[in-house]
Amino acid sequence: MSQNRKRAAIILAAGQGTRMKSPLPKVLHRVAGRAMMDLAIDAAEGLDCERIVVVVGAHSPQVGDSARQRLGADNVVVQDPPLGTGHAVLAAKVALSDFEGQVVVSYADCPLIDTQTLKTVFDLADKADLAVLGFEAADPGAYGRLVIEGADNLSAIVEAKEATAQQLAIRACNSGVLAADRATLFSLLDEVRNDNAKGEYYLTDVVGIAKARGLKPKVCFVGEEDVTGVNSQVELAAAEAIWQSRCRKTLMLNGVTMPAPETVFLSWDTQIAPGVVVEPNVVFAEGVSVASGAVIRAFSHLEGACVAEGALIGPYARLRPGADIGKDVHIGNFVEVKNVRIGEGAKANHLSYLGDGEVGAKANIGAGTIFCNYDGYFKHRTVIGEGAFVGSNASLVAPVTVGAGAITGSGSVITKDVPADALAFERSLQTEKAGWAKAFRERRTAEKAAQKKG
Amino acid sequence: MSQNRKRAAIILAAGQGTRMKSPLPKVLHRVAGRAMMDLAIDAAEGLDCERIVVVVGAHSPQVGDSARQRLGADNVVVQDPPLGTGHAVLAAKVALSDFEGQVVVSYADCPLIDTQTLKTVFDLADKADLAVLGFEAADPGAYGRLVIEGADNLSAIVEAKEATAQQLAIRACNSGVLAADRATLFSLLDEVRNDNAKGEYYLTDVVGIAKARGLKPKVCFVGEEDVTGVNSQVELAAAEAIWQSRCRKTLMLNGVTMPAPETVFLSWDTQIAPGVVVEPNVVFAEGVSVASGAVIRAFSHLEGACVAEGALIGPYARLRPGADIGKDVHIGNFVEVKNVRIGEGAKANHLSYLGDGEVGAKANIGAGTIFCNYDGYFKHRTVIGEGAFVGSNASLVAPVTVGAGAITGSGSVITKDVPADALAFERSLQTEKAGWAKAFRERRTAEKAAQKKG
Amino acid sequence: MSQNRKRAAIILAAGQGTRMKSPLPKVLHRVAGRAMMDLAIDAAEGLDCERIVVVVGAHSPQVGDSARQRLGADNVVVQDPPLGTGHAVLAAKVALSDFEGQVVVSYADCPLIDTQTLKTVFDLADKADLAVLGFEAADPGAYGRLVIEGADNLSAIVEAKEATAQQLAIRACNSGVLAADRATLFSLLDEVRNDNAKGEYYLTDVVGIAKARGLKPKVCFVGEEDVTGVNSQVELAAAEAIWQSRCRKTLMLNGVTMPAPETVFLSWDTQIAPGVVVEPNVVFAEGVSVASGAVIRAFSHLEGACVAEGALIGPYARLRPGADIGKDVHIGNFVEVKNVRIGEGAKANHLSYLGDGEVGAKANIGAGTIFCNYDGYFKHRTVIGEGAFVGSNASLVAPVTVGAGAITGSGSVITKDVPADALAFERSLQTEKAGWAKAFRERRTAEKAAQKKG
Repeated sequence: MSQNRKRAAIILAAGQGTRMKSPLPKVLHRVAGRAMMDLAIDAAEGLDCERIVVVVGAHSPQVGDSARQRLGADNVVVQDPPLGTGHAVLAAKVALSDFEGQVVVSYADCPLIDTQTLKTVFDLADKADLAVLGFEAADPGAYGRLVIEGADNLSAIVEAKEATAQQLAIRACNSGVLAADRATLFSLLDEVRNDNAKGEYYLTDVVGIAKARGLKPKVCFVGEEDVTGVNSQVELAAAEAIWQSRCRKTLMLNGVTMPAPETVFLSWDTQIAPGVVVEPNVVFAEGVSVASGAVIRAFSHLEGACVAEGALIGPYARLRPGADIGKDVHIGNFVEVKNVRIGEGAKANHLSYLGDGEVGAKANIGAGTIFCNYDGYFKHRTVIGEGAFVGSNASLVAPVTVGAGAITGSGSVITKDVPADALAFERSLQTEKAGWAKAFRERRTAEKAAQKKG
Repeated sequence: MSQNRKRAAIILAAGQGTRMKSPLPKVLHRVAGRAMMDLAIDAAEGLDCERIVVVVGAHSPQVGDSARQRLGADNVVVQDPPLGTGHAVLAAKVALSDFEGQVVVSYADCPLIDTQTLKTVFDLADKADLAVLGFEAADPGAYGRLVIEGADNLSAIVEAKEATAQQLAIRACNSGVLAADRATLFSLLDEVRNDNAKGEYYLTDVVGIAKARGLKPKVCFVGEEDVTGVNSQVELAAAEAIWQSRCRKTLMLNGVTMPAPETVFLSWDTQIAPGVVVEPNVVFAEGVSVASGAVIRAFSHLEGACVAEGALIGPYARLRPGADIGKDVHIGNFVEVKNVRIGEGAKANHLSYLGDGEVGAKANIGAGTIFCNYDGYFKHRTVIGEGAFVGSNASLVAPVTVGAGAITGSGSVITKDVPADALAFERSLQTEKAGWAKAFRERRTAEKAAQKKG
Repeated sequence: MSQNRKRAAIILAAGQGTRMKSPLPKVLHRVAGRAMMDLAIDAAEGLDCERIVVVVGAHSPQVGDSARQRLGADNVVVQDPPLGTGHAVLAAKVALSDFEGQVVVSYADCPLIDTQTLKTVFDLADKADLAVLGFEAADPGAYGRLVIEGADNLSAIVEAKEATAQQLAIRACNSGVLAADRATLFSLLDEVRNDNAKGEYYLTDVVGIAKARGLKPKVCFVGEEDVTGVNSQVELAAAEAIWQSRCRKTLMLNGVTMPAPETVFLSWDTQIAPGVVVEPNVVFAEGVSVASGAVIRAFSHLEGACVAEGALIGPYARLRPGADIGKDVHIGNFVEVKNVRIGEGAKANHLSYLGDGEVGAKANIGAGTIFCNYDGYFKHRTVIGEGAFVGSNASLVAPVTVGAGAITGSGSVITKDVPADALAFERSLQTEKAGWAKAFRERRTAEKAAQKKG
């Protein structure tokens, strides 16, 4: 029971999740924009677990595929048929046969179990034969009750169905997470029997077996929210709400200003520096970082984007992957930026699509500009030079370059490169027909009247 | 008191609603996108009520007009002058004179009274002379208290003002909803007197009269939220919040994924299939259905639209009435679709207005495309063939057809039909003036400097 | 102690606000879209305070600058070094030396202290030697406790650290706001000593000194929310939430319909008339007024805009400063309006940028229209006449005028004025190349296949 032993995690991801009522397997549903199974793996990786083994079911190949892609085939085992949680953990026995150290059992449908929580359990396992993670339940209901002696000695886990009235009054409940030395854990599991109503092997039974052997299980506690399990879409939304609320608070305590934090949605990897202002109704999808002094205005949507100091984004800006927004850049309303690097101080304030390319420093992109990047087969790049001025409603047909300091006329379709400092335009002569509009009005008005009669 | 008797509903909609402080009559205010009076009628229709009579006031002709339009003139009666709830119900006496069966009295300003609630009251009326709907009030305040004997025998309804201290402690309160055999109901009402402070005829008095006749009133209960009444904009918003919260939960339990359900707004008739993902900040106005596997991204607004399996909508997509979005279609940011059928796999991803027409399967609509559908008098149709590629920033002047597999050039104004597999474009030559931009900059810079001095 | 005496306010704004962790000084953070310091000044101005003196710290010149700009240099004093709240108030002594009347001490980081709250304190000061504002704390924690005799006689303020168990049970707490005759206040402050652990001069000490002199301090109370202090971004968001919630409720009680008030964000000066409908997810930034009968649809953002009766705004409309929207005007989705007056009944329903100019009554602005108002140096005006019809996807190159009743063709770049009733267009001939698209597809398909192999 010395400290700093090697660590491994077994993550149970074999549940069917039928109550999700969704074609997507339960553990691939996302919290904070990331599949719950990945969050569980992240938590274990955060502790430098030497091995992480995921136990999946046979019913959802997609789950196994996803786990194998991340961890390699050796670290994914299939539990088939599903015969209970104890059986699921045992499925990982062979995979961990040459691992020596502590093993924690965690769950792919508990998205709020984080590195800190796992550390708490591992730390206890350094001091106990078996470490069990409990929580104080507001409404213990059907949870297994933890019967505790003294400060942290676990006497038994009693299922609610089998509990006495006195035991039902206990609010310390079993989270299902536990840790022990690998050899101890599997040795205990080998003794678990399925002589119960469901004919399943319960992981929980290892506590009684340990006690019978004279071992000393101990308990530690985290908050109830920390071990929130997800079995339905309602519970998924509840877990998301807890995650968002915590993440928003962390950002604010770190110096981010959010007048309406409850309307700002963050992802697992969102990075926002102190001094940033985030207005109401902003969505940060995966892969966003925002530097100090930037302002993200209302109704903006950012994904895979990097925003430098002092940039002003939105309202109604959409930054997509590869949007690399320079210092003091302005991206305004109804502007979409994808895979474009925008140089310091450049502006694209209105109704534009900037896709695939580069905009030089201090360039000005007029309202309604479109980078025509796609020919139906390939994506091409548009390059706007430093200080160039792209007139409103331009169509820039990529591949095309507008040179530094060049100007393009409003409404022009630019298909050929424009030299630096030149003016380029594509336009016909404006033609007028005097009185035509009046005559048209009279004709149409008559037609409309006729139509109504008819 | 046999079961399965014919049923009728009297819906009271005569209140002035002065506390709404709005030019719109109270019962025409909407909950879940539907006028509260219509929700009350819906609830009665859901029970196959043979007759539904609405009692309106003389002060708001708009209410009577709306009710007559839906139910016909025979089923709308005007209470004039307004002399209390008992008087209001009596106003429906003649209209129901040849109806034999149970009659429920309901309220057009209680938008959460649904078919299930009415069924509860009717079912009790099958077993009682008079069925009264009660609720357990968190704060009984000014509500009438239900004095109950045994399980469900109603002794009296005591107004809060006239209640003893002991009666005030009762939390069972009167919702105002009641049901009885038509003949019984009106016979009881004929005895109600207005010898009270306000000189009004109170519906509640039928209970005492029934007891005096030796009849047996009974009570049944629903939750307090189920009978929420609306008398102010604050209460309207509260009723909306309850409705939304319930509807979101129902959808989630049915398999719809919503990371932030509290930011998704639904309408009374919204249909979303299991397996659909609805991101934060989405509004479903009336008349929307979304099929399985579709994803509705953030900041989208849907109204009167049908979205097929696998479609990807938004972020920032606006689907308006008649948007018929096919399988696996992509509708992207800042795209508006109205009265257009879009074939399987077609894409319109950026800053477009598609109004009145048709887009063939696998067609690609470039960024900034406008269907120029309106000439100021008539709307015309734009038809895009299968697999066509509409270049960015196009103006398609309807009526116009782009043939299957055709391509149109970026920035073109297409006024004539384009044959299948052809390229069509409308464009001038790109012209350049070398050095012009530099000279312009120098001139303008000088002018600006001069302006500042001046 | 007569009534109607002259009034002055000392507003303490010298705190460092390090817990905000933001480059912006704390009191310049905004609640309801207005710097907290300005809200504190507003509250005092609302009572016609003859003098308002702000005490700033030496650490944040930006705060002093902002205060001086609003109140003049005479009314801003710098507390340097910072030696406690008593010391801060004393810093205002000279500035108020010739003022005779009541002085209230308020705080620039308590954004919910409003005119009514200050009035409560001043009114008490008319009847007492020293008026102290208290609140009933839900969790008194570290707040100073108010020891009260009789109805409102203040015996002492006891710091939590020095309180007895009995005193700690007191829930009446000190807000820090107090008022007294100027001469009394400064005379009491002169006696305050800094012989405490921190070596600071505490404003609170004036109570004990007053008692020692035989003066009679009294207390009055407001709600805990009314004196919410802001020391972190989390507390800033909490104060904002309280403000928003109150303001929404006030609007609703006044007749504004808001189905989802929790998603509507208001500013300190937002004016919305009864009968207006505000759909979910609307942001009102500074300077907006909306007249009766207007509907503000979902996802709209308004700032510095005036909306007349019956106008229909949004969804996704952005009104910027100077947007003057006439009666029954429609501004639709993805439309930005800045510094444009729009006449009665005009419409701009789709994807447009209207910047700097004027639109006549009943004019119709087609989808995708851009006012090309900026040449990189100056802003120019676009004027659209009454009843004009601007075709879709137009670029109107300002300065330019489209005459009354004129029509411009779809996709045209209009650079010259268009006479009334004329048709103007700028367009080339539509050209077609039969079979070109098919050949292109075949070529590109081959290239793509080659690329994949390669």
